[in-house]
Amino acid sequence: MFVETGQAQRREQAPTHPGWAEDVRARVRSHVDDTVRRRCDEHVHSMRGSDFVAGVLADFVGRGKYLRSMFGYLGWRAAAPESPAALQAVSGLELLHAFALLQDDVMDRSLLRRGRPTVHVQLASWHRGQGMSGSPERFGESGAVLLGDLCLVWAEQAMRESGLPRAVLERGWPRYDEMRSELAVGQFADLLNEARRVPTLDEVMDVLRRKSGNYTVRRPLELGAAMAGASPELLAVLGDYGTMVGEAFQMRDDVLGVFGTDATGKTTGDDLAERKATSLVVLARELAGPSTRGALDALLHGCDETDGPVDVVAARLAIESTGARRRLEELIGTRVEGALRLVDGAVADGILGEDVAAVLRAMAVRCADRIS
Amino acid sequence: MFVETGQAQRREQAPTHPGWAEDVRARVRSHVDDTVRRRCDEHVHSMRGSDFVAGVLADFVGRGKYLRSMFGYLGWRAAAPESPAALQAVSGLELLHAFALLQDDVMDRSLLRRGRPTVHVQLASWHRGQGMSGSPERFGESGAVLLGDLCLVWAEQAMRESGLPRAVLERGWPRYDEMRSELAVGQFADLLNEARRVPTLDEVMDVLRRKSGNYTVRRPLELGAAMAGASPELLAVLGDYGTMVGEAFQMRDDVLGVFGTDATGKTTGDDLAERKATSLVVLARELAGPSTRGALDALLHGCDETDGPVDVVAARLAIESTGARRRLEELIGTRVEGALRLVDGAVADGILGEDVAAVLRAMAVRCADRIS
Repeated sequence: MFVETGQAQRREQAPTHPGWAEDVRARVRSHVDDTVRRRCDEHVHSMRGSDFVAGVLADFVGRGKYLRSMFGYLGWRAAAPESPAALQAVSGLELLHAFALLQDDVMDRSLLRRGRPTVHVQLASWHRGQGMSGSPERFGESGAVLLGDLCLVWAEQAMRESGLPRAVLERGWPRYDEMRSELAVGQFADLLNEARRVPTLDEVMDVLRRKSGNYTVRRPLELGAAMAGASPELLAVLGDYGTMVGEAFQMRDDVLGVFGTDATGKTTGDDLAERKATSLVVLARELAGPSTRGALDALLHGCDETDGPVDVVAARLAIESTGARRRLEELIGTRVEGALRLVDGAVADGILGEDVAAVLRAMAVRCADRIS
Repeated sequence: MFVETGQAQRREQAPTHPGWAEDVRARVRSHVDDTVRRRCDEHVHSMRGSDFVAGVLADFVGRGKYLRSMFGYLGWRAAAPESPAALQAVSGLELLHAFALLQDDVMDRSLLRRGRPTVHVQLASWHRGQGMSGSPERFGESGAVLLGDLCLVWAEQAMRESGLPRAVLERGWPRYDEMRSELAVGQFADLLNEARRVPTLDEVMDVLRRKSGNYTVRRPLELGAAMAGASPELLAVLGDYGTMVGEAFQMRDDVLGVFGTDATGKTTGDDLAERKATSLVVLARELAGPSTRGALDALLHGCDETDGPVDVVAARLAIESTGARRRLEELIGTRVEGALRLVDGAVADGILGEDVAAVLRAMAVRCADRIS
């Protein structure tokens, strides 16, 4: 049944309202918190360590940036009025994202995520603290994979049980399913890329689009818009906008992975330490002269334990010397400009309202700059 | 849309027909094969090694016993006539099962499944054969987890896209979701059991019910029956039958894990080699005198690499000497008799047709004996 609560009226304000985006984010967060607590009460409570596990999961999902749900809701709002049910439906995208991160971090053996130890690391510490037999690392990894599975299931329940009418949901499922398979296959392709030779920039961009860009911006926008019954023209604009902004988002991620600074202002160079073949590193390799290219190849290929840690400062200088950073900034800029032009065009053509357009413009810049 | 194909008429035969169960199994198998091939073509084709990955997955799901889909369809048939759409919907349970096995095998580091190397072992071998850099084991485990994720997603799509009317599916989703969460939480609880001290028989039975028994028999039956609009009385009978047969199934599994023989007639003792605290081993420990109990504790606790392999023959004799095997056979027998009585009662009360009852009786015996 499609019942809009009293909130619909109370919250009814245009996206141009300065507090709109913050309000959407807060409401998504509250839905996600509520889902995790409720599902844990329902399913996890009888298990040993249930409070600890539920706490870890709730903390993890609570610390997201809520980009995917925001784009999902913007897609909806591009074609339909405010709807608490639609907002609840897209809030499931945060659980889908949690699924992806929980399992990716196990596969990549990452130690930190969202400023805290990764979930598998937290579970391993708990196991160790409880003095259990068996391998804490193994327990942590298996536990995080299973929590990821639960998030994948609960994500879909959030959408199905959102209160949106069945006919509305029917328009969303094919896109939702496509997105989920694309996500898992993208991660699989990523394992293959890491496992082999230095990929070409085209290959990196392809994985980047499928694994991250698409599902951060494009697919959520299309999902929301499709459920709202958007016209093919509007869907096409949002799809193209999503591709551009998603690529800009991921390329910015790659710049930050080499030149980024953490909250204390210290540069991190995480991607270098992990020898990741990101768009920045691969571009640098393609632009480099023979000697710098040799140094970058050594960086990427030396996956042996015996190679010791990467000299992050030297690698950063080598990359900078190729002009790859400047070139990547240009590519990011081109994509943002393209996205903004698309939005302006759609407003001029009368297929997109100025209120939603304003938030799409702000989000394009935010994703490309990552100021907040 | 609810469109029954010409098959509906052609295949219309009562479950009492001698070929009915085989026919159902063959049709489920063909649906599952078709789903895997189609989804792989859709999503995996562009990936390196796609043919190999698709082949491994298709082979794996093709080698199942199809118990879950059979119980799902029996649940349906207990309350509704033959329906190719319902059969297609419950065929997704085989993909859900594949998801569980793929990830369990990674977590348990199992080497064999369904008479072949486990999927993560096959992926690791392929990685090694391709001469890729990085750890083949790590690639195998990550790859198998991701293939499991895909099966979890495709399982649900099989149900949603089965052609059953939305109202029919709506009756199924709550049970389907419950089953999926229960499955993941049951596996989590299993990790905790393995990781600590010797559990009590009650604890083992609780995990056994939640992780395996419920989702092999009870939940599939209830899912099919609920979708078919079964009465509360019929649902209750099927639920109780499912609990009993599910427990018998799992206890038989535990007997076979210690005393079973493989296709060549060689005894295996797999559960002993893996030091699993199964119902049989824990029951033996509870029935044992002090010295045998000490030996069984040493068997279960010695998880250290330095302990060397388990003396399977000695452990088997110790278990046999406690009378635990005979006691477990009695418990299995009690459950099968209880299940058969329930079926007879439901037929006498007119809430279950004799045709479906006959197959339920045969399945109860089959699950408890595992002759085939």
